[in-house]
Amino acid sequence: MNSTNRQWKLVSYPTGMPTESNWAMSESPIPEPSSGSMLVRAIYLDVAPYMRGRISSQKNYTAGVNPGELMVGGAIGQVVSSNTPAYQSGQIVVTGHTFGWQEFAVVEPSDVRLVDLDIAPLPCWLDFLGMNGLTAYFGLLQAAEMQAGDTVVISAAAGSVGQIAGQIAKISGGRVIAITSSKKKLGWCRQLGYDDGVNYRTETDLAAAIARVCPNGVDVYFDNTAGIIHDAVMQNLAAHARITICGTVSLADKFDQPDIGERFLRNILVSRARIQGFLVGDYQHHYQKAWARLANWYQQGQLKCEYDIVEGLENTPKAFLRLLTSKNLGKQLVKVGQD
Amino acid sequence: MNSTNRQWKLVSYPTGMPTESNWAMSESPIPEPSSGSMLVRAIYLDVAPYMRGRISSQKNYTAGVNPGELMVGGAIGQVVSSNTPAYQSGQIVVTGHTFGWQEFAVVEPSDVRLVDLDIAPLPCWLDFLGMNGLTAYFGLLQAAEMQAGDTVVISAAAGSVGQIAGQIAKISGGRVIAITSSKKKLGWCRQLGYDDGVNYRTETDLAAAIARVCPNGVDVYFDNTAGIIHDAVMQNLAAHARITICGTVSLADKFDQPDIGERFLRNILVSRARIQGFLVGDYQHHYQKAWARLANWYQQGQLKCEYDIVEGLENTPKAFLRLLTSKNLGKQLVKVGQD
Repeated sequence: MNSTNRQWKLVSYPTGMPTESNWAMSESPIPEPSSGSMLVRAIYLDVAPYMRGRISSQKNYTAGVNPGELMVGGAIGQVVSSNTPAYQSGQIVVTGHTFGWQEFAVVEPSDVRLVDLDIAPLPCWLDFLGMNGLTAYFGLLQAAEMQAGDTVVISAAAGSVGQIAGQIAKISGGRVIAITSSKKKLGWCRQLGYDDGVNYRTETDLAAAIARVCPNGVDVYFDNTAGIIHDAVMQNLAAHARITICGTVSLADKFDQPDIGERFLRNILVSRARIQGFLVGDYQHHYQKAWARLANWYQQGQLKCEYDIVEGLENTPKAFLRLLTSKNLGKQLVKVGQD
Repeated sequence: MNSTNRQWKLVSYPTGMPTESNWAMSESPIPEPSSGSMLVRAIYLDVAPYMRGRISSQKNYTAGVNPGELMVGGAIGQVVSSNTPAYQSGQIVVTGHTFGWQEFAVVEPSDVRLVDLDIAPLPCWLDFLGMNGLTAYFGLLQAAEMQAGDTVVISAAAGSVGQIAGQIAKISGGRVIAITSSKKKLGWCRQLGYDDGVNYRTETDLAAAIARVCPNGVDVYFDNTAGIIHDAVMQNLAAHARITICGTVSLADKFDQPDIGERFLRNILVSRARIQGFLVGDYQHHYQKAWARLANWYQQGQLKCEYDIVEGLENTPKAFLRLLTSKNLGKQLVKVGQD
């Protein structure tokens, strides 16, 4: 085992799109777990779009990371030593956001779940059995109240949340439309069961493209991106459309500026649409049920996953930037230690 | 009785803010009611913000008025002759939107309700006992799910829907904030029971002004206006805020142009706000209950009304423009015939 712990700390808030220079790697001694907590060695680190909101001086739903502090993020890891009877050394666990971009962390049992490899392989526990699965599940079925027969549009459709949301929508009886950034990603979405799709980078009139694939309008829009995709969908709302605002990754380069563009209050009024801002944490009393259903779908072969794995702690900021610029296909992870 | 029927017909779709020249008055013979219908003489004609949406080539929730056609609008009137057993001549009725801006109309019993002067005086039947009352009631209590203890902000607060919504919010246990366009209107809102208010025309920083009167944020926003008031409220959302998009009167001068400005998807996400487009017609199965409650509140002295009455059919477009430019205080009506 290493004698030091390598960590990525935030150096400065990004101006516009983040760059690698917004973080710096440093070393510190491996921490000791106090009574009631445990030391965990990272195997996979998570990088996810929500992290963009945490490295901004703008108001967010929870505390952000200040310059000089360890970058936030969940991990899959192995218990090295435990001062709590809840977990033993050698066990594999998945953690909440407090783990951070580092090799070792002291974590509390309340922030950890045990990984069961009989249910699904390791990376799945930061994917459909982690926050992404819950986000897709509650964002679609609760916040948007998706029903069988709905035409469901999903932006960032091949991304970590999108690929799961698309499959849940299909399992739930929807006609499901992918909006994504390449032909390769559209192909992957087809394999996942999406009925149709649009490449937003090659369409000259995105509103018309969505009208083409959604001739009866959009009943449910799972919005992971904001920006031009949002604008195009808002011009194609079916009556009583429901929109979940789950993420705004297309605004990653302008978190500190106003987002100026066309507003659609008349479209909302005329179609009696509902726009629901969404954070998965509001549904935590129902996580157990959602995890059970997600695991069940996976074991029945109804839920596929694709991973995009970058190797090495030193490449963590790079992996995060891949995500913000749509270069990943499937869930982006960083492998930082042996399984 | 006159031998002719004077009518206001649309001449052209407005470009920007409507002007009187968008309509022309013409005369035609008084129509004869066919079997099953009745002839009604107008006493009060309605002018209301929804009419702006009907005189545009833009998509709306229902068919618009084409140039050359009679302008739409409800009326309070007296039955002149009836070919239906449901109503007798001499009775006073209130009609749906099909009456139109004219002195006489043939109407169907299904589009008419009997006015009961024991419940409330004549103008009330186009106000809190008409569509405005229902709009305020369902927009606040159903679409926004207002609860006791909520901080409720209402734009166009002294207007036809706003003045009723403010009182229902107060009856329902809210802390109620008026946004309106003059000191006089703010005074009227205080008389109605609003707890506090903001004059949007005199504040230099409207978002800061709303923060001042809503120190814990806005739980419910009843949006009758869109525009700068919407923008200011969106920067002051409490967690799980609910916004009813009921009207967009501040866009009256740009129905045929995109509404460009700041978008607030990050605010919606962070506060998990819900924006609900609203049309009262979606609640028609519950109208009877709402009318009964509204009448009951009025008779208990909990619901006041103010009218702004313009005299003469010839002034109907003028009255409508008063409304679009915020010159009215209370419900705008046009008196066109004897009680």
